[in-house]
Amino acid sequence: METVSTNKAHGGVQGVYRHASAQTGTDMVFSVFVPEHAPGAKLPVVWYLSGLTCTHANVTDKGEYRRLCAELGLIFVAPDTSPRGEGVPDDAAGAYDFGLGAGFYVDASQEPYAKNYRMWSYVAEELPALIGENFPADMARQSIMGHSMGGHGALTLGLGLPDRYKAISAFAPIVAPCEVPWGQKALGLYLGDDPAAWRRHDAVAMIESGARVSELFVDQGEADQFLTAQLQPERLEAACAEAGIALTLRRQPGYDHSYYFISTFMEDHLRWHAARLG
Amino acid sequence: METVSTNKAHGGVQGVYRHASAQTGTDMVFSVFVPEHAPGAKLPVVWYLSGLTCTHANVTDKGEYRRLCAELGLIFVAPDTSPRGEGVPDDAAGAYDFGLGAGFYVDASQEPYAKNYRMWSYVAEELPALIGENFPADMARQSIMGHSMGGHGALTLGLGLPDRYKAISAFAPIVAPCEVPWGQKALGLYLGDDPAAWRRHDAVAMIESGARVSELFVDQGEADQFLTAQLQPERLEAACAEAGIALTLRRQPGYDHSYYFISTFMEDHLRWHAARLG
Repeated sequence: METVSTNKAHGGVQGVYRHASAQTGTDMVFSVFVPEHAPGAKLPVVWYLSGLTCTHANVTDKGEYRRLCAELGLIFVAPDTSPRGEGVPDDAAGAYDFGLGAGFYVDASQEPYAKNYRMWSYVAEELPALIGENFPADMARQSIMGHSMGGHGALTLGLGLPDRYKAISAFAPIVAPCEVPWGQKALGLYLGDDPAAWRRHDAVAMIESGARVSELFVDQGEADQFLTAQLQPERLEAACAEAGIALTLRRQPGYDHSYYFISTFMEDHLRWHAARLG
Repeated sequence: METVSTNKAHGGVQGVYRHASAQTGTDMVFSVFVPEHAPGAKLPVVWYLSGLTCTHANVTDKGEYRRLCAELGLIFVAPDTSPRGEGVPDDAAGAYDFGLGAGFYVDASQEPYAKNYRMWSYVAEELPALIGENFPADMARQSIMGHSMGGHGALTLGLGLPDRYKAISAFAPIVAPCEVPWGQKALGLYLGDDPAAWRRHDAVAMIESGARVSELFVDQGEADQFLTAQLQPERLEAACAEAGIALTLRRQPGYDHSYYFISTFMEDHLRWHAARLG
């Protein structure tokens, strides 16, 4: 693991790091904020999964999480959203919603993507091991959140690994990728024509198929330009009601899909996570 | 004035606007955050002047000021740092420290810069008039802050217009441009060989020449890579002590010149401003 940069911020250290990923076969860059802490202390870890087109840098620059993580004693990890680099296949037309910047947190089974696009295993296995080895992290206390495609990632990783994360929340998540254009394109190209494979990466379908967590927290802007075509939080609401999952879904009037929305409600999410991380 | 974008954030509106500037002879872009407020209310205005290479976007993205401005009821205005566009002369070698992104908050007297580089008059006259006309701003209650070259701007505008600003503060300011390479290059190219003209745009020299305000607030990172060559806060400390200006100069261990430093201490600055804006 190589240090790209470290900067003191809010009493802690905001770092950016690079490592050669065995899962993706590429170098991967991620950011970690470590608050000031007592020598030898181990801190809980909040995972933040970003949305389409993002790298670690978007939330690192605009997420306004450091003040809260410093106050609450939380490590904050922001991975990239896809493999990148020479030889990594991208969307054939260079579209923003597939390929580079759009890994959708799945392990691709289809060529030419299967070799590099292993973001599920990267986020669920490889990067946690690296974090546990290199940072003062208490890996028994992890939680996960994300935005848009990263909200999809947070929900599906959270539901898929229900003993792993003490809290799961999302900003404007894609809750039912099987049912919306972004998800249909990505799941089709990464996973092929297998409906069961798609449903294992669709939060609503996972709940319908029996996946259970005790509670979820979602903020959704009512002025979000992707609300009706891509996000459709009412699908999650219905699935959680049916399954008995305590969903806190807040519809925020006037807020859009941007980091202005995320940064406004980041405090509420981090306090909710901290209360559950102990 | 044309609206480039508006986004709801922390209950208020973060806007970006463009207008044709008579001073610079170019279109100029700036950002304004207006907190939620009672109909008809007029709010005090905090000016934030950015450093070398920046536009309005740097602090708008990374400054972490909106939460505080929402809480304290402050309008936050971030101008660009220079004219830009076709025909605007830049540094001959394209260097970052002169020309585009580096207006130094002076009205240039030298060719080819004199026509466009009128950032003093732009920030002191033209833009305040536009803000007063188009936003719910109480122009009797203004304050000013800035970073690096923008800290120089905040100090010199504050000292030059002592009845204008109720509070003046800076993050890692260039306090004595006449004495350091960044300032010597810029003042020479913009203002020519006239030492008196330089001293009218040098905070320490202005104080030595009799400019007075009651107090100043400066944060300076001790790990700032520009501390000894370009910033030299001890010169401001000496001038203020001699002049009887109450300078609060905080040397912050471990902090560098970046927005990680600025965003960490933005809260302290905004609370200090709010207390003085009434």
